[in-house]
Amino acid sequence: MSHIANTPEPPYYAVIFTNTLSDSTDGYEETAVEMVNLAKQQPGYLGFESARDGIGISISYWEDLASIKLWKSQSEHLIAQKHGRDYWYQNYKTRIALIERDYEFNR
Amino acid sequence: MSHIANTPEPPYYAVIFTNTLSDSTDGYEETAVEMVNLAKQQPGYLGFESARDGIGISISYWEDLASIKLWKSQSEHLIAQKHGRDYWYQNYKTRIALIERDYEFNR
Repeated sequence: MSHIANTPEPPYYAVIFTNTLSDSTDGYEETAVEMVNLAKQQPGYLGFESARDGIGISISYWEDLASIKLWKSQSEHLIAQKHGRDYWYQNYKTRIALIERDYEFNR
Repeated sequence: MSHIANTPEPPYYAVIFTNTLSDSTDGYEETAVEMVNLAKQQPGYLGFESARDGIGISISYWEDLASIKLWKSQSEHLIAQKHGRDYWYQNYKTRIALIERDYEFNR
């Protein structure tokens, strides 16, 4: 289960990945878990949040655009991305965002 | 059910609202639906995406910071925000983000 990511003071970056799955999701869950574990080891990784019901929303947080670019071109991640387009995803939209401000509430 | 938001060409803004619920969620669902319907009528509204399993992630998209500020201070929304802090949410984090770039895939 995902938690609210404990990110540092802005500014920092986010990759917002919104998606719907196809009917061919063999291996999807395992690869998704693997990719999060791999992302955590990347330089500039700051955190991760995800939820799915109907659509899936996964957000990874990064120090800067350079770390996002490096993660996008990481070799195992490239294979997973290709597999996603070939099989798993029906549709997706990726948005690269500069987090300018944040605030939080804790009971 | 939420869909992938059909947003215009960047740049535009997003409010990423990540949250966990408390045990007191009476009226939460109804108000959440109402707030989305109300947001849609606000100036500068561009789209909305949400998913929940464990954590909830709701993202609303806006033309600019001025439209986000106006929505934050909308009177019925202010009441819902207070009710959220008083009852519904255990924790939340709100991030204001400038969407710089996006790309998509459709099968």
